[in-house]
Amino acid sequence: MHTVYRFFLLISLFSAKWAQAQNGIVVFQSDFGLKDGAVSAMKGVALGVSPSLKLFDLTHEIPAYNIWEAAYRLHQTVTYYPAGTVFVSVCDPGVGTERRSVVLLTKSGHYIVTPDNGTLTLVAEDLGIKEIRQIDEAVNRRRNSGASYTFHGRDVYAYTAARLAAHVITFAKVGPKLPNNVVRILYQKAERSGNVVKGNIPILDIQYGNAWSNIPKSLIDQIGVKVGDKIRVQISRSDQTVYDKSIRLVNTFGEVPLGDDVAYINSLLNFSIAINQENFSEKYKVASGPEWLITVSK
Amino acid sequence: MHTVYRFFLLISLFSAKWAQAQNGIVVFQSDFGLKDGAVSAMKGVALGVSPSLKLFDLTHEIPAYNIWEAAYRLHQTVTYYPAGTVFVSVCDPGVGTERRSVVLLTKSGHYIVTPDNGTLTLVAEDLGIKEIRQIDEAVNRRRNSGASYTFHGRDVYAYTAARLAAHVITFAKVGPKLPNNVVRILYQKAERSGNVVKGNIPILDIQYGNAWSNIPKSLIDQIGVKVGDKIRVQISRSDQTVYDKSIRLVNTFGEVPLGDDVAYINSLLNFSIAINQENFSEKYKVASGPEWLITVSK
Amino acid sequence: MHTVYRFFLLISLFSAKWAQAQNGIVVFQSDFGLKDGAVSAMKGVALGVSPSLKLFDLTHEIPAYNIWEAAYRLHQTVTYYPAGTVFVSVCDPGVGTERRSVVLLTKSGHYIVTPDNGTLTLVAEDLGIKEIRQIDEAVNRRRNSGASYTFHGRDVYAYTAARLAAHVITFAKVGPKLPNNVVRILYQKAERSGNVVKGNIPILDIQYGNAWSNIPKSLIDQIGVKVGDKIRVQISRSDQTVYDKSIRLVNTFGEVPLGDDVAYINSLLNFSIAINQENFSEKYKVASGPEWLITVSK
Repeated sequence: MHTVYRFFLLISLFSAKWAQAQNGIVVFQSDFGLKDGAVSAMKGVALGVSPSLKLFDLTHEIPAYNIWEAAYRLHQTVTYYPAGTVFVSVCDPGVGTERRSVVLLTKSGHYIVTPDNGTLTLVAEDLGIKEIRQIDEAVNRRRNSGASYTFHGRDVYAYTAARLAAHVITFAKVGPKLPNNVVRILYQKAERSGNVVKGNIPILDIQYGNAWSNIPKSLIDQIGVKVGDKIRVQISRSDQTVYDKSIRLVNTFGEVPLGDDVAYINSLLNFSIAINQENFSEKYKVASGPEWLITVSK
Repeated sequence: MHTVYRFFLLISLFSAKWAQAQNGIVVFQSDFGLKDGAVSAMKGVALGVSPSLKLFDLTHEIPAYNIWEAAYRLHQTVTYYPAGTVFVSVCDPGVGTERRSVVLLTKSGHYIVTPDNGTLTLVAEDLGIKEIRQIDEAVNRRRNSGASYTFHGRDVYAYTAARLAAHVITFAKVGPKLPNNVVRILYQKAERSGNVVKGNIPILDIQYGNAWSNIPKSLIDQIGVKVGDKIRVQISRSDQTVYDKSIRLVNTFGEVPLGDDVAYINSLLNFSIAINQENFSEKYKVASGPEWLITVSK
Repeated sequence: MHTVYRFFLLISLFSAKWAQAQNGIVVFQSDFGLKDGAVSAMKGVALGVSPSLKLFDLTHEIPAYNIWEAAYRLHQTVTYYPAGTVFVSVCDPGVGTERRSVVLLTKSGHYIVTPDNGTLTLVAEDLGIKEIRQIDEAVNRRRNSGASYTFHGRDVYAYTAARLAAHVITFAKVGPKLPNNVVRILYQKAERSGNVVKGNIPILDIQYGNAWSNIPKSLIDQIGVKVGDKIRVQISRSDQTVYDKSIRLVNTFGEVPLGDDVAYINSLLNFSIAINQENFSEKYKVASGPEWLITVSK
């Protein structure tokens, strides 16, 4: 037994170390869209660093300049990739101004290369900050790109991410270590008070028009709501009520007639609202962002 | 001769076996769109199974809940990939209800992982069913994903496809073998009666607005129509005529003036209609689906 | 020293040769959009040639039939990929007519597989023509694809690109060598006359609505304009003035208030115009193409 124990200890130490070793996968996110060559140029630069990198996309349809949504898409996606994956997120309305360019290593072993402008708000909270470093552009910038002021995504972020992912540089060589905090966007966190739960609508499930809250299933459980129960859902923006209705919590949309409002637990295990095969957001003019509040009561 | 014969027999037996060996390629299709992290999360899960998988997309712009179009895009694309490719198709309005989750192995050696809700209608007809198995979610489901009811695409389909493509499981380990049939959507098959050919408009060539029928070139040949001939084309939806005109069958649009209606044989070798450098579908309000009929006569 | 010199000579000869050796990377561009299976079928065909090819996208959102924009996207992107990369560009309104199918090898060592219909206008000027060959469809065409007249992108271009990239054929085996010129689209080149610089607006930065000119930073420097200066910018289409205003040249948008017009040097080091966090193109009805002129004066 003793040797076996030692063996497992070794494995687990090794795994802990391995958990943050870069795995050659780079995932790109931006607000560039796919109509021009910008995303492709970032990938070309990465392949120029190492043709064996594996390049993927998160999304490039972040609405222009919408840092909140960039933060949300990272939060929604990062942990589905193996530890050691390097993410690049470029939603950078302040490009060329004072915001710092950083690489965050989360406690889950994921790297995120981005301007520190709020993009890291949610992953820093969810996954924890293991270490954060400022990109030293003196070394981590494509050669001959100095005369260009506006495409950091290609010349700094994609380039640094590729060098890190391909083990051309270690994490330490990204640049100086920073204190363990990031620029944060304020929003209503999920909280319970008696039989009432309050939270935020961070995002819409845009393809279907469903509203996703940040209220976890566990808080809904705590107020004693079960699948099949009717609950009161109120949604407001600033102080104006936009929606106030009693609806049923279901496991699957198939449980209610077409066109009925339903509450459900989404794939992130958060409380959400939809209409069975219709667009909730369009029908009720409900949108998303840090300023949208939702209240659920039994 | 005898030994040569044996050799070829061996080769062909080997090829037949090889034709269905997974090749490490996974191709994703869905109605998720590319604006959020859903497609990316599926890929992250697949890479978590094996980082050496090669991941591609068919399309993620299937109109929401449009199973017919999901079926059509598979039909249009599957055979251009090498045998052994694993496809994942997630257009799943009935997620969480009774439809079965299956993996179809076609006679051409392609695997398709999907809810069995009509999505397999056309590939089952075209390519034949070699074997079909129901996904056993007790084993083929991401760990710790049991509390989520709505993202089978990620937790079951992408996960199973990746395990199958990466040889983590054999096809037999997908789950129990089912009878060789699939849920089918009804539509007008292409058929000739004298000098008249009838068929369906399964899809538009959406980028250009061309209408594609399911009538193969061979049936057009059979009624004696040649390139350069004028033919009568009628299109109806339910019993209402939407289009009725005599147009020319051409090899290439360049053979008629800009703005002329033309008939042509498309890249799938089916009879199709277009306007040279204009949008046929918009101009004549012609759409596609199981309910659209087209008649071609000499 | 002598041996060292020889060594470097060897290295540089080797590099020159290597610079045009195919690197297994294929990058696809088209006007097909991503809503159907066309792009995916091209990739399937390429993987059928060799499953180890690395396949990427430039963009598939070239507006239908817009050869100028296809030319521009190549110009904007090609050099960010390593030498030896094979590009496929399919924007082919004349498919099936007399235009030649070619592979251009640029002096920078990039291959471009395309119909020679104007698509090569800008890369031929920028990067120079090292050699150009006409695709011999007798050998470089997918087997059994002869009955189809309309999908050269898949059956000829993707197929030839894959065979070239995977070293199945050498460049010489593409087909006969052609004279070193390509079909060109006419447009106003950037030129200075005294303190006035004239040029073209080849493209919009479509995601943000910025107007990008073809006037390089160096010409702006030559008329003595510095960051912070006000300059007069006139834009016309045909002979009609669309915009005429004095605006400031800045390094970054953050230097002016939200909503101000600004001039800046874009990521291609060309003179460009924008509104800080608004859409210049929409506000002033400025578009792009060979027919748009821009004049900058001190």
